[in-house]
Amino acid sequence: MPHRGDPIFVIDSGLGGLTVARAILARLPGERVVYFGDTARLPYGSKTKQTVTSFVRQIVAWGLHHHRPKHVVIACNTASALALPQLRNEFAPLAIWGVVEPGARAAAQAAGTKEAASIGVIATEATVRSEAYQRAIGTRRRLARIFVKSTPLLVPMIEEGRMHDDPIVELVLREYLKSLTDRDITALVLGCTHYPLYAPVIQRIVGKDVRVIDSAEQCAEDVARRLAADGLSADPRQAQVMDDCERISAYVTDDPERFQRLAHRFLGFSVDRPTLVAPETLYQSIDSATPAAASDDDHAEPLLRLPA
Amino acid sequence: MPHRGDPIFVIDSGLGGLTVARAILARLPGERVVYFGDTARLPYGSKTKQTVTSFVRQIVAWGLHHHRPKHVVIACNTASALALPQLRNEFAPLAIWGVVEPGARAAAQAAGTKEAASIGVIATEATVRSEAYQRAIGTRRRLARIFVKSTPLLVPMIEEGRMHDDPIVELVLREYLKSLTDRDITALVLGCTHYPLYAPVIQRIVGKDVRVIDSAEQCAEDVARRLAADGLSADPRQAQVMDDCERISAYVTDDPERFQRLAHRFLGFSVDRPTLVAPETLYQSIDSATPAAASDDDHAEPLLRLPA
Repeated sequence: MPHRGDPIFVIDSGLGGLTVARAILARLPGERVVYFGDTARLPYGSKTKQTVTSFVRQIVAWGLHHHRPKHVVIACNTASALALPQLRNEFAPLAIWGVVEPGARAAAQAAGTKEAASIGVIATEATVRSEAYQRAIGTRRRLARIFVKSTPLLVPMIEEGRMHDDPIVELVLREYLKSLTDRDITALVLGCTHYPLYAPVIQRIVGKDVRVIDSAEQCAEDVARRLAADGLSADPRQAQVMDDCERISAYVTDDPERFQRLAHRFLGFSVDRPTLVAPETLYQSIDSATPAAASDDDHAEPLLRLPA
Repeated sequence: MPHRGDPIFVIDSGLGGLTVARAILARLPGERVVYFGDTARLPYGSKTKQTVTSFVRQIVAWGLHHHRPKHVVIACNTASALALPQLRNEFAPLAIWGVVEPGARAAAQAAGTKEAASIGVIATEATVRSEAYQRAIGTRRRLARIFVKSTPLLVPMIEEGRMHDDPIVELVLREYLKSLTDRDITALVLGCTHYPLYAPVIQRIVGKDVRVIDSAEQCAEDVARRLAADGLSADPRQAQVMDDCERISAYVTDDPERFQRLAHRFLGFSVDRPTLVAPETLYQSIDSATPAAASDDDHAEPLLRLPA
């Protein structure tokens, strides 16, 4: 059975998911986060459902084996869009959260009272292709018009260190957002955990009447409510005896130095040097834990259960 | 022993190496190319030496096992810069070619007669960090001043399908190239196999007096000479009985459809749908072939030899 002292396991392809880890740490004092960045195989946003599901399955299995988390958060929109339904099924009854649902819910609420509201989403190519946002928003606002735009240069620009005031950032964002602002959107979902770093310039381009939505806080809220409902919230007195950087321990599949150097920008504070996990270890981990895990069957039986 | 009928094995992280495959097919009628694009784990340009070497080692081992190539070409500047010396050592006496040496040689020749010529190189972050171009040019032109600039947005822009006349392409290239044109370079190496797709706009920005160098043709020339010297050139009469697309067979670790759709732009003709090779197969391949292959020892003994 999960225990209130267990950590929350946050998974991302790289650094972007730290914006979600940050929201969780802020919303939930006393919780500890184990963060996994798959930096050897990033980005996920240009890859297929099969490949991304396989990568994330390995990481979930590794996390269960090494850290016994009480909850798992897939803090990457692409991985949430492509892999979440299948992995929830495979790893049931483990609580696995994604970032697409919270963002879609916030957008549906924020889009205003007009029934046929227009809602924009910017995301990676793979997230757009998955139609996960169209489905998630569509079930809540059946008459909403949903416009989804892939914006593949944003992550490389952020990773390159380009800031809000860079003229290339402005030009690229104006080009990407034009097809959405032309449609009179009332809400815009930042459908990738990197994008909040450009929120100020995005807000300026779309105008103050458009509600810009970052799903990290909504996601943290979901986790907080479910932990409370299950009696699994950490003892908040823990918060007083831990520094921010003691509350998060990070693991990466490549280049711990680069991760440590850039983490502050996403997290708001510095982290200790992450531990390196070679990608081949992940294959071994799932091979030993779940012999049938490579199956791509949507109706597969649960393969792993939380340690009793 | 290698045989003249064996194929040439060309390795890249994705599509870019097809510009090298194209040069080899054009220079060497009658040769067959087996092409491997590691599309599940691309790009290599932001990753470490250790990770890129490990990925390419697996692919070389897989290629030897399945295709018995007479030569191997690492058609990716990042992989050439980071992994080539070590893999040549591990797989000796297999002939493994890279694309850094040919580009550096062409630049040293093209930079003009002034002894202290200025030579520019644009490349990925990892290639720049490796200092492979500085070393390779420096040994040939000891007094040359070498300026190397990382240009991480170019590959994502090309993969997004942005063409020469896109104003964002022009703005990004002008920004990247300014620090080089300010230095009065006489030659500019396109240090990534994607970049030749922007050669016309790059040439326009740097001016007609700067020699823009694409290492693909130099690399094909190296392969051709060595095959001839070793008596391993294919029978040129083969060229008359094969279509272009019959001369190349491709393997990818993700998304064969996307590869097939975009290949024409790099290769100049269409290819058959590539065969999918799951990344975990590569780990198994090297596990069984070379138990000690995970060693990162620069002085390791050769691990694999060409099948006798």
